[in-house]
Order: sequence, then structure tokens, then C-alpha cells
Amino acid sequence: MQTKLDIGKSSNIKTNAENMAKHHKEISVSEFFLKNRHLLGFDNPRKALLTTVKEAVDNSLDAAEEAGILPVIIVNMTAVKDAVDRYTILIEDNGPGIVKANVPRVFGKLLYGSKFHRLKCSRGQQGIGISSAGMYGQLTTGKAVRVWSRIDKNKPAEYFELVIDTKSNEPQVLKQESVEWDKDHGTKVIIELEGKYLKGRQSVDDYLKQVAIANPHAHIIYDSPLERLEFPAIVKQLPKEPKEIKPHPYGVELGILMKMLKDTKARNLAGFLKSDFCRVSSKVAKEICDKAKLYVNARPSRIALQEVDALYRAIQETKIMSPPTDCLVPIGEDILVKGLKKEISADFYAAVTRPPSVYRGNPFQIEVSIAYGGDIPADNLVKILRFANRVPLLYQQSACASYNAVLNTAWRNYNLSQSKGALPIGPVVIMVHMSSVWVPFTSEAKEAIASYPEIIKEMKLALQECGRKLGLHIRSVKKSQQEAKKKGYIEKYLPHIGIGLKEILGFSDKDEAKLLETLKDVLERSRQ
Amino acid sequence: MQTKLDIGKSSNIKTNAENMAKHHKEISVSEFFLKNRHLLGFDNPRKALLTTVKEAVDNSLDAAEEAGILPVIIVNMTAVKDAVDRYTILIEDNGPGIVKANVPRVFGKLLYGSKFHRLKCSRGQQGIGISSAGMYGQLTTGKAVRVWSRIDKNKPAEYFELVIDTKSNEPQVLKQESVEWDKDHGTKVIIELEGKYLKGRQSVDDYLKQVAIANPHAHIIYDSPLERLEFPAIVKQLPKEPKEIKPHPYGVELGILMKMLKDTKARNLAGFLKSDFCRVSSKVAKEICDKAKLYVNARPSRIALQEVDALYRAIQETKIMSPPTDCLVPIGEDILVKGLKKEISADFYAAVTRPPSVYRGNPFQIEVSIAYGGDIPADNLVKILRFANRVPLLYQQSACASYNAVLNTAWRNYNLSQSKGALPIGPVVIMVHMSSVWVPFTSEAKEAIASYPEIIKEMKLALQECGRKLGLHIRSVKKSQQEAKKKGYIEKYLPHIGIGLKEILGFSDKDEAKLLETLKDVLERSRQ
Repeated sequence: MQTKLDIGKSSNIKTNAENMAKHHKEISVSEFFLKNRHLLGFDNPRKALLTTVKEAVDNSLDAAEEAGILPVIIVNMTAVKDAVDRYTILIEDNGPGIVKANVPRVFGKLLYGSKFHRLKCSRGQQGIGISSAGMYGQLTTGKAVRVWSRIDKNKPAEYFELVIDTKSNEPQVLKQESVEWDKDHGTKVIIELEGKYLKGRQSVDDYLKQVAIANPHAHIIYDSPLERLEFPAIVKQLPKEPKEIKPHPYGVELGILMKMLKDTKARNLAGFLKSDFCRVSSKVAKEICDKAKLYVNARPSRIALQEVDALYRAIQETKIMSPPTDCLVPIGEDILVKGLKKEISADFYAAVTRPPSVYRGNPFQIEVSIAYGGDIPADNLVKILRFANRVPLLYQQSACASYNAVLNTAWRNYNLSQSKGALPIGPVVIMVHMSSVWVPFTSEAKEAIASYPEIIKEMKLALQECGRKLGLHIRSVKKSQQEAKKKGYIEKYLPHIGIGLKEILGFSDKDEAKLLETLKDVLERSRQ
Repeated sequence: MQTKLDIGKSSNIKTNAENMAKHHKEISVSEFFLKNRHLLGFDNPRKALLTTVKEAVDNSLDAAEEAGILPVIIVNMTAVKDAVDRYTILIEDNGPGIVKANVPRVFGKLLYGSKFHRLKCSRGQQGIGISSAGMYGQLTTGKAVRVWSRIDKNKPAEYFELVIDTKSNEPQVLKQESVEWDKDHGTKVIIELEGKYLKGRQSVDDYLKQVAIANPHAHIIYDSPLERLEFPAIVKQLPKEPKEIKPHPYGVELGILMKMLKDTKARNLAGFLKSDFCRVSSKVAKEICDKAKLYVNARPSRIALQEVDALYRAIQETKIMSPPTDCLVPIGEDILVKGLKKEISADFYAAVTRPPSVYRGNPFQIEVSIAYGGDIPADNLVKILRFANRVPLLYQQSACASYNAVLNTAWRNYNLSQSKGALPIGPVVIMVHMSSVWVPFTSEAKEAIASYPEIIKEMKLALQECGRKLGLHIRSVKKSQQEAKKKGYIEKYLPHIGIGLKEILGFSDKDEAKLLETLKDVLERSRQ
């Protein structure tokens, strides 16, 4: 800090702070994401279709499940007449609907929603998705988002046309009216946008197929621009309802702790610890307070920075039970295999659901399933199907913790060939699922899971467990292939030996047949 | 759309829209990034140190260069006494300073800055970086950010202590006063934060070393917790000053066009096209208006949606010159090689600066340099050094366009071994630099470049060009190795032939020596 600076003289300055200050300006969150729309999954017209469908379907599934309704979702994608690369996307569900007052901000404001401030397994978690799809539509076609919502058969449906004012990040309602709808409750949204429809990998078709694999309780009717694809529900029961949990003390940082102390409704410190966190009993609360040298009856809002620091340290030093894990909703080994079987024709399947674990105080659970052989191409790198809270992740594979985990598993141990720094090669499809109350995505588009060490570790353990099963299978396949080859030799040459022996020893046909029978038996037993 | 839904009856609904509406809530941008701090590069304590230094140094370099000052930057990182994993980071520059009124928001508000609304090559571009570092410090230590700024030797320096109110995303100034400072102009910031100091790959040391490679005009004095590292400027001249450009018509989307028409100060359509875009002459403006069937004198704010659509299409159908490229600031082939040589001891160097190109209307330019052999380990995957506008990118390599481009270049053509889906293997370091008025990063932490097809294409062309030079070098090295081997054989066996001939033919020592000389000459010539 003592270094004397070799600075240019003031008179040399080409422009100065006052000139530069004129450029300083606030940036609205909508402007930011408009310019950085690839962060939201709107990199290009093809992906824009996928992202829009994804955000709407995620919301529909979340809402229906939360309301205890078996989801039925209609997706309709139509090319706009006389326009190039322009589509109308309609998504309609049988969910509980959205109350009239909230519709504009749900669809017309970034960073608004019901899921951000809760810790609960859900597909959405940011309050950005569907409004960003609307904003992209508006950006590329100038058209408003159209929304129908009905929350009760005794009330009319409400219809909205709205756009986002990107300078203020607030919705602007262009039209609102009560309308007829032949449906008791549900939500329907129509967005017109620039897009490019292609089938194949990373397409909307591919996405909905994978949604059906991980959500066998959902009924999806999809009219692509070319054909109707229907995915009927094969399970007539909703998954276990995910529970909301309080944050775990170990996952809370000093700054958040300060904020929580200011905001809490609890009147004293012990009450605060018990009511605002999970897994803190009266006994644990007292232990923490004692260690921090604070009174259990202290007023939370009166605690000074130094004391918060002591409290924070005391939490880290106190043994606290891991967060509850009944808030997690794994797919389960059975349904994982069923899902893969439905989709991929292979010779061998295996699945592993790991026990729950914790990263930064957030409970999570990893599941892996594997399909091998059959129709899967044998000479390609293995294919990875990635899911987070049952949502398929189609982009940014190499940025994902799951890719990282597959790459860093020693597949040669399980009889697959693998080059340095590459995925293994073989007729293999690997599915990785993470269920968590908070999935740490690497971008707002929620395409890849961040590589927290705890997450990678669990993924690797699951992959290794599946890998061992796979390795055994491949070994036994190889062994029986060798045996079949050997058996082939026996069957090919045995008759010739018979003819030879018959000529040399003058056997009858009957003797020859008997001898060959015995010989074959002896030879085959020697292969065991 | 006609499908009749198989919906659950209303009475079955477990919760309803009104209950769910209670959870709907606005999310402030600070809260969002606080919870998603890995998006800003604060995934873990080690990376937090790097990101903090990076954001501050980026700002210092940008400001000094804009003011025409050769940058001298002091970085000081000190472990906080009696604390675990806690550091004080100080960054001080000789730049133009920041005017008093703007300091709080530059350091205490996310999405505030001078670079977002301009198209100009600069390191910062979002208005998030330094304030997010302050927010992270506040989150993990509860401590305020301390800032000194002086803009003129005739004015005092101004000192601030400030925090971010995360609920409103506004700065809260805890202390402000005029102070003495033995410096005419500059900015100094001190942030206390949770961190972990480690040397090696992806460390602050590594980062500053790479900064020095790509910014040989900067003088950096770095006190790490262990030692002083100094990187003196080896070039006494600032890089060419980057120019600000207007957006190019091809890169503007319909929605932005609508917004620009509303916001413009131009009084008529032709004037708007000429003043608010680059590369639009009166002639081009008239051509666009004619194609769109709009009057050149039409009032921009009065143009209806249908007409904007026609205007948008007319722009796409009109031939408009590519955006100017003198706004780009490549490092240059010479300095690229100098930089690599300074850092990496190798046998062979090559560099290529591609001509400028355009993605989504934004000019950009790709540069690649390669070092081969020497001290570089031969059995590892090649090492990639990535830069965007001279800023080293240390994380998220596999999510980066440059990785993608290296992976999808056929290195076997250039005599390197490469497995399917993997980087090539060999004693190679590849440096990739992108200069652009707007670098499309895959996340707010600016760690990887998004894979736009135009960017990948340019990177691959540059890699291939360098690859060909490398291939020639490797071939000639291999050839001379083989020759050396052959020469080795000749030298090994020739004396024995000499002895044999001497015995058989009875040569004298002199004759033998002469014969061997001639024989060696003949044999070596036959190798040519």
C-alpha cells in the first residue's frame, strides 16, 4: 500500500471523471435480459421455441401438482401464415388458474413469482421464465401475450393482452375482459414469436418425450407444426407432495443471518432460531446462544454485528441434525427403469436412487439409471439424459455437473472404453436426475447444474453403483459370446470327427451317434 | 385446440389459486443474485477472491485507458487477523476517479454503470461486477465497502463506507467525508470478504499473470498473502483507443426497433435511420423507406406496429455495409507471440489475427496463438488460455465457444493425436482472444463465451490456420528426428564396416579412414 504511483499528470488526461459520469446510468432488469437473452435460453430461433414451451409446461405441471390435480396439458405450435420463421405457441392446462390481480405480473414482469422465496422442490424457482418468453415474443414480433385464466367454475374466465414495459420492468395491460370458457379452471397462454421448428435432438418433440419419461403421471397432447404426438399418463397417481422446508442453519451466511434477525417476527433469539430454521430444538437453540455468549431472550433486532458474528460461529460449531429429506421427491428406481424402457430399446437396464444429501444447507437427492445394448449405437460417445426436479435439461451439457461426473468416472473399470478427457464410448444411455429444494443452475435458462463438490460426489457414487452393475453385465455378455463361439466350433467339427472315427474303427451309425453325444457332453462340460 | 380436457373436478382441488396467490411476490435483483451468487462468480471462497480482484482490475483498466492514462494498479490481499478464511482486498488505480455523486451507486447497486448502454470494446459491460463483489463481502462478513475517489488535484479525495440494501437494490451510505490523499486522481476500494487463498491454476496469481500477457501496457503491483509479484509494463503505449459505434441495422430486432422509434430524438424516419444506426447513408435510408412503403418524412413515434414490421423486413432486404471494424482492438500477432514467449518456454510459436466479422450486428474479431514443445508437458490434453477484450477467462472452460471450437477442429490433420469427443493431446498451449463491442457471455460472471455459430466459425478458421503452421512444424521435427536416428545408425555401424573391410581387403588405417569418409558422405546424401 506504500508504493508510490507512477501516474500520468492530470493535464494528460484525455477525458475526465465528469465526462465519464454522464454515461453512468441505471439498467433495468428487463433491459439487461433483453440484451443478454441467451442467458434466458433465447440464443436462437430454434431454441426460443423450446424455451417457451419449457417455461410454460414447467409452470403448468407445478401448479396442477400443487393443487392436487393430475395434469393434462395441451401444447400447440402453429406456423404463422405468410410469415417466415414465426410461430404461435399455445399452452393450456387444467391447473388451478391464477387470480386476476396477479396475472399481469406473472406474465409481464421479470423476477416475480411464488417459488423464489420458498425452499420446496418445484420446476420453476426464479420468477423469470414465462415472462421472459413473453418478452422474447414481444421483441421479435411486437405482439402482446394473450392469457386466459379461470380459478373457479362459479367465476368467469379472465382474458388479458399484455406486454412488458422494459424500461420499468412492469406489465402494461392492453386489454382485459371476462370471457366464456368451457373449462372449470385452468390457464391458457398464447405467445407469438420468432422461431425455427426442427425435429430431432434438442427439439420441442424431444423435450416433451423426455418430460413424459420423468413425469409418467402427466397427460400431454402436443400438436407440432407437422403432427399430433400424445403422451398419455401411465401412472394415475400424483407423485408424493413435496414439502416446503425452512432453511438449515448450516446453509445460512452471515449477511443473511443479519437480515433474518432484522426481519423476524420472533421476539427473542431462541424463538427466532427455532421458528425461522429447520432442525433447531429448544435445546439446540440454547446451546447455540450459550456458545455465542448471547441471552436466549435477547431481542433479535438489537443484536450487533460483532454478536451476529459470534452467533454465526456458534451455529457452525454446534451439532445440528441434517435437514429433513421428506421434502425431496425422487422418481424412484422402478419408475426410472420403466421410463427408460418405454423410450429406449436396450438389453440391460439398471437404476440407483441415492440417499438424500446436503449442499450449502439444501437437501438434494441424486438418481442415475443406465440402458445398455439393444438398439443403442455402439460406436458413439455415451448419451446423457439430464433432469432437475423432473425437468429435462437439453442444452449446455458440458457445463453441467452431471457431465463432469460422467467424465470423471473411470468407465474402463466397468468394461467401457474411454479416452482421456472424453466421455466413454459404447451402446449406453445414462440418465441423471437431481431433486432438490433449490437446484443451483449455471444460468437463468436453467440448462445445467452448477458443479458443487457435494453434488458431483453424489452423482459419481450413483454412477459407480450403476457402473458396477453394468460392468458385471458386460463381462457376462462377453463370456457367453466366447462360449457361443466355442460351442460353434464344437458343433462344426464334431461331425467330422465322427466320420473319421467311424471309418477308422468301423462303428455303426448308432454307435457313432452315441459316441458323438457323449463327446459333445464331455466337451461342453469342460467349458464350464 | 379443440381437445376436450379430462380435468379433475373443482372439489378435488387440494389448494386453490387464491391460496397460491398469497405466495406471489416480487424479487429484487439483489435478492436474486444473492441467492444465485454462483451466477456472478461467487460459487466458493477461493473463486470469490478471484472474482473480486477481476472485477476491480477490469474497471481500473477500463477507466484508465478511457482517460488516456497508462494504468498502474495496486492489488493487495491480506488475511484478516484472528479470523478463518477471511481476507481484505485492496485495489487502487491511477485512473480518472469517479464523481462523488455516482460513487454510491457504482459500488452499491447492481445493474448500474456506464458501459451497458454503449457499443464499445471494454472489459466491463454489465454494471454488475464490482457492486456484486461488495455485496458478497457484506454477505459473508457483514462489513461495508470502503471507497476513496479523487478526480482532480484541485479537489479533495472523497471517502465512502457503503452497503447495498438488498431488498431495494439501492446503496446505503454509512459514512462520507472529504479526506487527504497523496495522489492527484484515482480510485481505491477495500472489500473484506470470506475467501480462500491458494496458488496455482485459477488463482489470483494466475489471473494477474494472464492479465499481464494480454495487457503489456499495464503496470501491476500485486501483494499476495505470501509475496510481492510485480508485472512491469513492457509496452509504453496505450492500445489504440476503441471507438463507440451505433448499432448495425441487421442486428436490431423488431421489438428494439419499436422502442428506438419511440425513444429517438430524430424528427423523421430517414433522420432516425441515419442518426441512430451505423452504416445508413441518406441513400440507404431512402431505399429502406421505399421498400417498407413509408415516407422518409414520417414521424418516428407515429409508426404503427404493422409499419414497423414492414420497416424491419425492408432493413433485412436492403444491402447495408458491414459495421465499421475500427472499433475493435485486437492484440495483434506480434504481441500475441511476445506475450506467449514471455510466459511459456516452447520450441515453436504461431499467431493469427482474423479479419473482423459480425454476429447479430455486432462486430468482433478472433485471434489465436499457439505454443508447442519445450517445457510444455507432452502427455496432457492441450491447455487453452481464453481471453475476451483482453480479460483472462479462468472458469467454465467447457461451456465456452473457444473450447467448443478447439474440440471440433480436426487436430489429427496437424499431427496431434485426438480421441473422439476430447481435446487433442500434446505439448501445446492455445490462446484464443475475442475482441468485440459486445461479448456474449454465458453468465453474468463472464466466464465463458456463448457459442454463436459465427463466433465458432471464426475461431475454427483461426485455429485451422495456426494448426497448419503447427502441423508443418511437427512434420519437420519428426522428419529431422528420423534423420537423426538414421544418422545415429550410420555412425554406429560404419566403424564396424570399416574394420571388416580392413580385414578382408587389407587396407591401411589411412585408406580405411578415407573409405569411411566417402561412405558416410554417400549414405548421408542418400537420406536427402
